[in-house]
Amino acid sequence: MKIVIAPDSFKESLTALEVAQAIQQGFARVFPEAEYQLVPMADGGEGSVQSLVDATHGSLQKISVIAPLANEVEGFFGLSGDQKTAFIEMAAASGLHLVPMEQRNPLVTTSYGTGQLIKAALDLGVEKIILGIGGSATNDGGVGMLQALGAKFLNAEQREIGFGGEALSQIQQIDLSGLDSRLKQVEFEVACDVDNPLCGERGASAIFGPQKGATPEMVKMLDHALLHFAETVKSQLGIEIAEKAGAGAAGGMGGGLLLLPNVTLRSGVQIILEATDLAEKLADADLVVTGEGRMDAQSIAGKTPIGVAKVAKQFGKPVIAIVGSLKEDYPVVYQHGIDAVFPIIRQVSNLEAVLKSGKENLISTAENVARLWKISALQE
Amino acid sequence: MKIVIAPDSFKESLTALEVAQAIQQGFARVFPEAEYQLVPMADGGEGSVQSLVDATHGSLQKISVIAPLANEVEGFFGLSGDQKTAFIEMAAASGLHLVPMEQRNPLVTTSYGTGQLIKAALDLGVEKIILGIGGSATNDGGVGMLQALGAKFLNAEQREIGFGGEALSQIQQIDLSGLDSRLKQVEFEVACDVDNPLCGERGASAIFGPQKGATPEMVKMLDHALLHFAETVKSQLGIEIAEKAGAGAAGGMGGGLLLLPNVTLRSGVQIILEATDLAEKLADADLVVTGEGRMDAQSIAGKTPIGVAKVAKQFGKPVIAIVGSLKEDYPVVYQHGIDAVFPIIRQVSNLEAVLKSGKENLISTAENVARLWKISALQE
Repeated sequence: MKIVIAPDSFKESLTALEVAQAIQQGFARVFPEAEYQLVPMADGGEGSVQSLVDATHGSLQKISVIAPLANEVEGFFGLSGDQKTAFIEMAAASGLHLVPMEQRNPLVTTSYGTGQLIKAALDLGVEKIILGIGGSATNDGGVGMLQALGAKFLNAEQREIGFGGEALSQIQQIDLSGLDSRLKQVEFEVACDVDNPLCGERGASAIFGPQKGATPEMVKMLDHALLHFAETVKSQLGIEIAEKAGAGAAGGMGGGLLLLPNVTLRSGVQIILEATDLAEKLADADLVVTGEGRMDAQSIAGKTPIGVAKVAKQFGKPVIAIVGSLKEDYPVVYQHGIDAVFPIIRQVSNLEAVLKSGKENLISTAENVARLWKISALQE
Repeated sequence: MKIVIAPDSFKESLTALEVAQAIQQGFARVFPEAEYQLVPMADGGEGSVQSLVDATHGSLQKISVIAPLANEVEGFFGLSGDQKTAFIEMAAASGLHLVPMEQRNPLVTTSYGTGQLIKAALDLGVEKIILGIGGSATNDGGVGMLQALGAKFLNAEQREIGFGGEALSQIQQIDLSGLDSRLKQVEFEVACDVDNPLCGERGASAIFGPQKGATPEMVKMLDHALLHFAETVKSQLGIEIAEKAGAGAAGGMGGGLLLLPNVTLRSGVQIILEATDLAEKLADADLVVTGEGRMDAQSIAGKTPIGVAKVAKQFGKPVIAIVGSLKEDYPVVYQHGIDAVFPIIRQVSNLEAVLKSGKENLISTAENVARLWKISALQE
């Protein structure tokens, strides 16, 4: 029997690899002779780099980068086991968690550090870059990132504009001639699961600005600045980014990335399914086990277990999900390839206790799923 | 496919019948054509009367009885569907819950009301009485119960002693000649899962007295009174009750009952397994589903699911438990016939919320168990 275990991480508790190992441990109590293939998964969001490093037996690379408020912090990115692919999370250099609550202000925060991570990946000679852009503190249209890669954004005095979303309104001239030329040689996939345009009422500033600290006043300023940026890009470079689906992701990072060569915005889980070769790994499996920290109706919108289930169902494989918690509205997942789902909580307890006992509960739930699987199979 | 669903109640939340119905509802979403047999179970403790009434399609009988503090309350007992068996819980007339916290005092509380329930059952012409003796407020050696059934306990002045554990020390003469003669015609089974003797450091007063409100001083008085009672019984009636296993149950009720004809003390779940004809019902089942409010290592000591599993395993049937919560020490149940166990909690929440969503969570868990059962069976 071959069992493929391909879960997402349980946020705040266990990495995807740890989740997969715990599930294997529970199953192995019942099926010690089975063949297990562990494929730590992700959806392009937080934890994706760790999962991809684990899935490809790669390594984490740490470098000093410029944080959203221009202070230096230690950032990181992942390098695949074959050293051909870099896995980058924007949040590792430009994340909201790097900005103290009271200093959150997208007028000034920059995505420069994310550009530094990309540059560092290019320095390692990768052939492919996978970038997740969730959790950013910025609303600068990715201009900081582009600056770090050699692009120039000049103001009326022919001087480089400063950091932050507000500065975009000063852009008079864009010069991409200094862009790192290695970008032309790499395949660059961006995990993007929102289709928001750059500007307007569904744009980056209006939708994502407030959670980054923007007041209604700031949202207006930021939206105007992004619009000016888009218009300048269009007039000087001939690239249309304002209305592009996904351009509004990560404070306009989705739009800014479109100024680079070879960039495609795609579903995060889709990118990761390919990066982990999941289809190949489960083609000869008897059972696929997936999971995530919390399953609900939103899970069908680009979350890992449904992505895994879709691939599994192409091969007609049964799919069981083991999850940290399960919201009332979850049953829609049955129509998206999940055959059965089991939450791991065993007792009334607070979040802290549940997180602490997560691994043990996961092992125990996996064991009971395996036990049920076994006795059912024995009946027929 | 025939599925037997034989759970205990989920205390404070759902009766055994409600649990069984919820499990059926979940299973029926996956196996709408299956044959379901619902057998509400119990272990002789709280809820047993309701379960037996439900299991036999019987009825609840309500009568006015004397509560532990001698006030009148409405008591109840169950009558089986064939009207041949009465199901009585001592707690329904003499329960601790009938005495306000600040008035709990086993020196004065009486088991008289339980005797009234027995008498009322005899009035209905039953052939068998099943009595559960958990949850009592009394430590009177069952003397109150015996008084209600016609026994006389006289003091030095040839007057009937009063109610309560303390009064036992006044007993000079026991006269059973007035005992209800119909007791000789009935089979009388007492559900008793403790083996405590009547007196001493493992006796009724020392072990169960404190939870009924006895201070260390009172425990001594009560223990002496029970010893005096046992000695008088032995010298005048020739019946040895002091050292009998189970005599110390329910404040010595286990001992007092031995003064009646045809009484046997047995494991509660065993009595109920027989009363519900469970073995016959599951002999041709494909799957047995049981459950209880909380499963832990103690579950192997006379709790319902293990009793059900034992019977099921005599017929080689798979047994799945669905439970309200699951304690860390539960895995020992695997060695006692439980093949797999699934707790129903789906999210971090408080007890109130968990109790409130109990039915929905139970249905959902049963559905997922059925889904897993189905896909596993399809694989082989």
